[in-house]
Amino acid sequence: MPNDTDLYEKLTNSERLFEGKIINLRRDEVILPNGRTGMREVVEHPGAVAIVPLTTEGNVILVRQFRHPIGQVILEVPAGKLDSGEDPAACAVRELAEETGFTANTLRKLTSMYTTPGFSNEIIHVYLAEDLIESDKHPDEDEFINTEIYTPEQIHQMIISGELCDAKSLVALCLAGI
Amino acid sequence: MPNDTDLYEKLTNSERLFEGKIINLRRDEVILPNGRTGMREVVEHPGAVAIVPLTTEGNVILVRQFRHPIGQVILEVPAGKLDSGEDPAACAVRELAEETGFTANTLRKLTSMYTTPGFSNEIIHVYLAEDLIESDKHPDEDEFINTEIYTPEQIHQMIISGELCDAKSLVALCLAGI
Repeated sequence: MPNDTDLYEKLTNSERLFEGKIINLRRDEVILPNGRTGMREVVEHPGAVAIVPLTTEGNVILVRQFRHPIGQVILEVPAGKLDSGEDPAACAVRELAEETGFTANTLRKLTSMYTTPGFSNEIIHVYLAEDLIESDKHPDEDEFINTEIYTPEQIHQMIISGELCDAKSLVALCLAGI
Repeated sequence: MPNDTDLYEKLTNSERLFEGKIINLRRDEVILPNGRTGMREVVEHPGAVAIVPLTTEGNVILVRQFRHPIGQVILEVPAGKLDSGEDPAACAVRELAEETGFTANTLRKLTSMYTTPGFSNEIIHVYLAEDLIESDKHPDEDEFINTEIYTPEQIHQMIISGELCDAKSLVALCLAGI
């Protein structure tokens, strides 16, 4: 294990700038490893889950939705934010049902990852969902989502073409072995 | 191609909340597909590149650094923000040299992806860098980075164990075929 002690920064001040519906923003003052002062902008996020729902035929359920920050409709794996204090696995079951209408009898954790550790603390817990049972989907009132099913070959092609361009989805599909 | 027109939101107002060193924050009011009004918090980011530097031996150069938002030292592929108007490929060459001291004679684009399309417009352009030539590294004055070289087997193990937990790095290593 390499020596990391030469890399750490020490927090000396923190200014809260914004408290939002989904994210908060703060600006921290830190002492850098060379003793100088630096400023770090931090987006606070509650954390999230992403799910690869695999059908018995070996196909994957993806969701298509408009993402306002990028002004585009894109394809992603089902995903959603953690409610306060919510267990990530329970969140994965809930979000899968809300966005796709499917319940999973088998849920396997693939990894947990930071999406943007340079400016945010968002962590996404990634799951593979199998043995799916269909029921009704019931998205949040401000979510508008189309559900679509793709074969592994179609997914490979959309990764190569760049149509699949959402980082969490790329990680999730890769770690699921799709 | 499915019909996306039922998914789009229409911008009706935008409030600028913060202009920072790295990110800006705004809050937009939108008309949702059902005609109701919604609020969207948007973190504006200049975009970035991530690079998988592959040595002639088939090993990968990773960087270890402290990430203040998550309070941890983590391993990542070399990466960095685009300067204003900068070509992504030129940025990849520059960041690779700054963070690792290596220049690449062969650079291949792997994909472009959105890290967090739910709350930010950050796009990361991902490159594979080969035919490396070593020179001096010269990180930014507020960057403190250790450079380390790993075999593909070590990287697989760190993906399975969760030690490699940075989303852009996981995508980049996967698409590079590591």
